[in-house]
Amino acid sequence: MADYRVPLKDMGFLLFDVFKAEAMWQQLPTLAERVDRETAEAILQECAKIAEQEIAPISRQGDEVGVSFNDGKVTTAPGYKEAFKTYAEGGWTALGGDPEYGGMGMPKMLTAQHEEMLCSGDISFALYPVLTAGAALSLAKHGSEELKNLYLTRMYSGEWSASMCLTESHAGSDLGIIRTKAIPQEDGSYSITGNKIFITGGEHDLTENIIHLVLAKLPDAPAGPKGISLFLVPKFHVNNDGSLGERNQVHCGSIEHKMGIHASATCVMNFDGAKGYLIGDLNRGLACMFTMMNFERIGVGIQGLSAASRSYQNALEYAKERLQGRALTGAKNTDKEADSIMVHGDVRRMLLNMKAMNEGSRALSTYIAMQLDYATYGEGELQAKGDALSTLMTPLAKAFFTDLGFENTVTGQQIFGGHGFIREWGQEQLVRDARITQIYEGTNGIQAMDLLARKVVGSQGKLMQVFIDEVNDYIKATPAENMQEFIAPLADALNDFSELTQYLLTKSKENINEIGAAANDYLHVFGYTAMAFVWAKMAEVALEKQGSDDFYQAKIKTARYYFTRLLPRRLSLIASAKSGSDTLFDIDDELF
Amino acid sequence: MADYRVPLKDMGFLLFDVFKAEAMWQQLPTLAERVDRETAEAILQECAKIAEQEIAPISRQGDEVGVSFNDGKVTTAPGYKEAFKTYAEGGWTALGGDPEYGGMGMPKMLTAQHEEMLCSGDISFALYPVLTAGAALSLAKHGSEELKNLYLTRMYSGEWSASMCLTESHAGSDLGIIRTKAIPQEDGSYSITGNKIFITGGEHDLTENIIHLVLAKLPDAPAGPKGISLFLVPKFHVNNDGSLGERNQVHCGSIEHKMGIHASATCVMNFDGAKGYLIGDLNRGLACMFTMMNFERIGVGIQGLSAASRSYQNALEYAKERLQGRALTGAKNTDKEADSIMVHGDVRRMLLNMKAMNEGSRALSTYIAMQLDYATYGEGELQAKGDALSTLMTPLAKAFFTDLGFENTVTGQQIFGGHGFIREWGQEQLVRDARITQIYEGTNGIQAMDLLARKVVGSQGKLMQVFIDEVNDYIKATPAENMQEFIAPLADALNDFSELTQYLLTKSKENINEIGAAANDYLHVFGYTAMAFVWAKMAEVALEKQGSDDFYQAKIKTARYYFTRLLPRRLSLIASAKSGSDTLFDIDDELF
Repeated sequence: MADYRVPLKDMGFLLFDVFKAEAMWQQLPTLAERVDRETAEAILQECAKIAEQEIAPISRQGDEVGVSFNDGKVTTAPGYKEAFKTYAEGGWTALGGDPEYGGMGMPKMLTAQHEEMLCSGDISFALYPVLTAGAALSLAKHGSEELKNLYLTRMYSGEWSASMCLTESHAGSDLGIIRTKAIPQEDGSYSITGNKIFITGGEHDLTENIIHLVLAKLPDAPAGPKGISLFLVPKFHVNNDGSLGERNQVHCGSIEHKMGIHASATCVMNFDGAKGYLIGDLNRGLACMFTMMNFERIGVGIQGLSAASRSYQNALEYAKERLQGRALTGAKNTDKEADSIMVHGDVRRMLLNMKAMNEGSRALSTYIAMQLDYATYGEGELQAKGDALSTLMTPLAKAFFTDLGFENTVTGQQIFGGHGFIREWGQEQLVRDARITQIYEGTNGIQAMDLLARKVVGSQGKLMQVFIDEVNDYIKATPAENMQEFIAPLADALNDFSELTQYLLTKSKENINEIGAAANDYLHVFGYTAMAFVWAKMAEVALEKQGSDDFYQAKIKTARYYFTRLLPRRLSLIASAKSGSDTLFDIDDELF
Repeated sequence: MADYRVPLKDMGFLLFDVFKAEAMWQQLPTLAERVDRETAEAILQECAKIAEQEIAPISRQGDEVGVSFNDGKVTTAPGYKEAFKTYAEGGWTALGGDPEYGGMGMPKMLTAQHEEMLCSGDISFALYPVLTAGAALSLAKHGSEELKNLYLTRMYSGEWSASMCLTESHAGSDLGIIRTKAIPQEDGSYSITGNKIFITGGEHDLTENIIHLVLAKLPDAPAGPKGISLFLVPKFHVNNDGSLGERNQVHCGSIEHKMGIHASATCVMNFDGAKGYLIGDLNRGLACMFTMMNFERIGVGIQGLSAASRSYQNALEYAKERLQGRALTGAKNTDKEADSIMVHGDVRRMLLNMKAMNEGSRALSTYIAMQLDYATYGEGELQAKGDALSTLMTPLAKAFFTDLGFENTVTGQQIFGGHGFIREWGQEQLVRDARITQIYEGTNGIQAMDLLARKVVGSQGKLMQVFIDEVNDYIKATPAENMQEFIAPLADALNDFSELTQYLLTKSKENINEIGAAANDYLHVFGYTAMAFVWAKMAEVALEKQGSDDFYQAKIKTARYYFTRLLPRRLSLIASAKSGSDTLFDIDDELF
């Protein structure tokens, strides 16, 4: 496997040239105090070192050795403890945290890129700190002052980690039917009893305490999602002075054997009257959990990109070195017995697919992060737009980046031929690791329903209009002649997408099944359209700067590839989305 | 995992109702002697028992335990030896073999379905007999009488197995640069020296001898593919009376650790002056090997279908039992806390994708097998057409069925949510096993080039015209009103495909790079169009028979699904294929 190299230049290009982060930060008082370009660049460079030198090198043995379970204890693979220690000591666990409790309060635009590096290094490793960051976010937003003082600081310091305990064996996508019970105690705490499965980092040896965020129901709670509350359940009780007390009644019953992310502990967690503390209001637990889930959903999207980005680096190195066959136009490498496989159109197609989708996903993820920062730190219209766009694009990031990410790890494997299928080169691990990203944190089918049913139809199209207006404004503001090769197809795509949105709003009023029938196609049309938007923005900057550097030439040519080769994918998706729900529902279950 | 059930009804429907095998066999004198409907049905039923009861049950432990290598010896996983013995004793290793040497001479239409069952049971297991059958085919066609008498009978009996030794570490897709040498000996044999990698079944403990078909070059051979000869190299020398002699100088150096097909031994084979016997003419080895490779390419295509078919059965059972969420139109299962996930449009989409593509692939594979049978047993125009269509559709079967097959194992895994990612349910094994089918036996990119460069452009469109005429004839012969919902989109698809073929023939004359740029898209447009053709044929028969059985209702509705939801995929592919080669080649290697 090629050594992993963080695409720092691309990340800086997106932050400072395309999305003008510097100006944005100066405009937002809270961020202006915390971060400037110099700080941001230093952070990314330092983080890149950790990802390249500490995390990427342990990924292979993490896959080979995996986590082991013995007598309730989980042991991580060799190197993980040391890497986690280095990572925490570097302050990286505090990067996005609330400064009042010891966090660094860095904007999402930076932490999103930090997550990409981390996950390109090793998704399994990244899950431990990334879940902790998400849990801390929920706690910071919804927890009592007492809980925050006692727990947040140690989570930011990396001394403690966290897990999210949602799924039960009979309840995954459908959390309304969970059975874990919370019984109120006289001291104001709750006694939590139930079994949770698929708990990432539910037990391990990286930190001295693990803070579980657990969904449970009070005995008299309303049925369904409106009766769910959120509780903080520590592995070890925490004394008032912050020192650790007795073991709480929560234990790991077993770990799963999985297709990939072998170094991530996926645990069955048994709560047997464990002491828990309410986070937020009773019966409002799902909303509190969604603070964490939305964070993780974007994070999972980034994981898809991360694996594909690493796969691309490996595939490119291999393709340049592998000599096989001759160019159709005649031998290029006449002193060797064969040309590099870079001469073959189909190999170039595969590499450019990866390059265009990876860079497009990175751009779109940075754009979404920017909107999240506006939502958090902005005011007035900017804040409202940031909120709308990040709400809309959270399911997009999760599902679109991971569908593309998986496709591209498979493509990166294909470029290796038979060598991609054997373990030696690492390409097959990236496929196995990336595969989970389409499933966990709400399957991609659930994301598509969240987008179309809840957010688009649920707002009667108003939320999506914010995106459509945003792109239309950009199109109108970009009349330059040399941009028309990008602007014209972007405008076509946007018109078609806007028309599709209206079509489905109307159709779904007649027949609500149209939503489920079209959701997956719709999400992907949205994705290719939004990606065309950020590719146009990248091309615009690259056209301004071309001549100064090959980097910009590459951007322009990759943009061209995206518009001519990938954006047309929307055509089939639109045809399928408009084909209606009859072919799906007019067939009895017995006929399957 | 659900117990595997061979789709015997669908197989019989294709053979006897859609493609009228009975009439065809009666029409071809050789086959009329060998097989009739009753025999065929008995064969399929017996074979189904083996697949369901002997082979499917060992697949999981084959994956868990894998093959092991020790001191040059390969030990297969528990159960494989017993299953192979049962399989061979049942006469299944002789099914397609030449009757002159002990084979049963059954038509490809039957053996293709037999291969599907076998591979749905376990691809790893199937590889041992299927490679042997392919090697036997090449030997039967190109070998001397002496070699055939000595080797074929034992290969058909299952006492001996075979391997194909092509790839070397520096030469995979590009066989012209192999380095394995063959030195002529005084006794007419050859001394073979060289190293081969990725040799499936190169060494194992299932049979007492292994017959390697090895590509090598004589010292004075012409450079490139025209200097390759084919040799038979037995693991153990064979005495003139058929008894085994000394060990030949061919040994397994190691085995690969792979993403999937763990129970298949993938060997490094070292030839150190091993004694070999020429098959066919000197320097015509590649052509002789292609007899085997074309057989295996269709076989690999069927493997893709096989894994997807098993994944579908598992996913359907799971979807019916898994209760999660409620139908958008209101609760269906009011006495339970949730509805089965069959109520969700996106789950139905996933299942119908699988069902429509699997049944379409099975139909198309049976159609291709029929053309192969015409090519082998037919005369005159029928024979010529069978030859043209099977030549054209061999790369299609390999690449299209495996691309769809892989996609559909991933879909079948997705339906399980998190349960699909853990090993317990078996869905992830099918993904890992299916993945190799897109790679080995010529990557799918190579297949696309074989189709477009060699067969379409190479024949100046003449070969493809045979397919276009075939479908056009069918369209003209099918004026029935109730067929127009299928015939009209089929005609559209065929027109567009025909137009695309002409477009690429013209464009590639101007710029040969257009071939490599469009090959992958072109192959898939061909695939979706050909699949529409066989779906129309299936719908036609089902419309005639509807009312008698739910099976036919299901066919009609699945056909509708195919035409409205899957055939539109061609739109994006055509747009991409026509976008030209500039975006692929107008970017320097350094800019990737």
